[in-house]
Amino acid sequence: MASNNDDIPHTGSLRYDEDQPKIPAVAISTNDANLLSEVIDKEGTAKIYLETHCEMLPDILSYNVIGEMNGTERPDEYIVVGGHLDSWDVGHGAHDDGSGCVQSIEALRILQELDYKPRYSLRAVMFMNEENGLRGGREYALQADKKNEKHIAALESDSGGFTPRGFSFTGTDAQRKKLRSWAPLLNPYGLHDLGSPGGGADIGPLRSSGTALFGLRPDSQRYFNYHHTAADTFDKVDKRELELGAAAMSALIYLIDSKGI
Amino acid sequence: MASNNDDIPHTGSLRYDEDQPKIPAVAISTNDANLLSEVIDKEGTAKIYLETHCEMLPDILSYNVIGEMNGTERPDEYIVVGGHLDSWDVGHGAHDDGSGCVQSIEALRILQELDYKPRYSLRAVMFMNEENGLRGGREYALQADKKNEKHIAALESDSGGFTPRGFSFTGTDAQRKKLRSWAPLLNPYGLHDLGSPGGGADIGPLRSSGTALFGLRPDSQRYFNYHHTAADTFDKVDKRELELGAAAMSALIYLIDSKGI
Repeated sequence: MASNNDDIPHTGSLRYDEDQPKIPAVAISTNDANLLSEVIDKEGTAKIYLETHCEMLPDILSYNVIGEMNGTERPDEYIVVGGHLDSWDVGHGAHDDGSGCVQSIEALRILQELDYKPRYSLRAVMFMNEENGLRGGREYALQADKKNEKHIAALESDSGGFTPRGFSFTGTDAQRKKLRSWAPLLNPYGLHDLGSPGGGADIGPLRSSGTALFGLRPDSQRYFNYHHTAADTFDKVDKRELELGAAAMSALIYLIDSKGI
Repeated sequence: MASNNDDIPHTGSLRYDEDQPKIPAVAISTNDANLLSEVIDKEGTAKIYLETHCEMLPDILSYNVIGEMNGTERPDEYIVVGGHLDSWDVGHGAHDDGSGCVQSIEALRILQELDYKPRYSLRAVMFMNEENGLRGGREYALQADKKNEKHIAALESDSGGFTPRGFSFTGTDAQRKKLRSWAPLLNPYGLHDLGSPGGGADIGPLRSSGTALFGLRPDSQRYFNYHHTAADTFDKVDKRELELGAAAMSALIYLIDSKGI
């Protein structure tokens, strides 16, 4: 999934077609893949020695982490902003998705610092286990359903901590029209992209109960240099770009909370 | 001029008010400035030992570097795309303005590879000595005037090799209207910012002869992390972002050349 040529393999998932033989597979870097292709083109064949130490460990109990600001008018209805807490183990998971977690906390912190009293209850949710089966997101939606917690909107940041360029969206036509009506408020901050569909992996399971889903759309050019690799480290995150994303999220939460969706 | 707190001073110019005493001045980093303020706040005074080895060297002869594609319909009229060749000596000058130079070359190379035959003559100009007096830009305009070379438009990239977001512009109302009419062609590529005024330092001297001036507007968030510092090195430039800027410039040159301005 790399967008550049380098020596860093991108980790990821493997699925088998049940009708086909199960051939062992590992991720290799783009440079290695190109080298391998060249050798095969030239020699017609290639002999490779490859050693891998991956293993599947047993499940252990882990948790979503949730912070909340209570609503003043509709405390039993929720607006959620979130990212996911887990990451692939090769790097720090700085852009995927440490950025989304701290931005979600920051989006609410900004509103708190402004002494804003939300109409709805606002939650910052750090979803657990997105990468390996979306289990935090699924469990969150299940619990919301069980507890009859109505979620009017959810916003996820899971595309990296780069300069924000807009929000993706999945919902009704009326909701889309409302989002578009906010364009004059968002465009001056470079938030032009208000396209569909959208949302995020962790908040996806909320859709079945009618929650409007939003995803932060940051500048996308560097994400797949880092995503799921040893290069996704803290030093790759620019503080100012990260903060702009959090501010954009805070602005959208404010609009949804104050004007409804 | 830093946008972040770090230990790297940003070089730059110093001008004196003739009516005031000439106090020696040096650039220090934002972290050092904050430390100094803290010490003075606490102690009321500060004693500093500071050693600097800067010197003004005598002028030497240097040159603008120019590449050209000949126009098929109006070979004596010019569209210029450029950056500047010199940089502050503390770093590589990778974003300021190595990026602008290679993008200017690339903008014309793209058109050549597409076998595009320009109506006007197209020039990629690497201006010399922007940082220390704009002498390459001034001389270029002087020579253009002397040789009666009509320059209908000039585009400069001197804001870093980041993801392009649009073009700044200085020209007539009719030209601005024309640029705006191209928005539907530019917006799908994230080029939304088509504001005024604009251009660039090197192409500024062309304005007096009526040349329409355009400046590439890349994402601005990281430029002043690097600008004029030891951190403005090659590794800070993302190849993909750099190429997108060059492609945007190529697209604008194509529009100006084929539709006029």
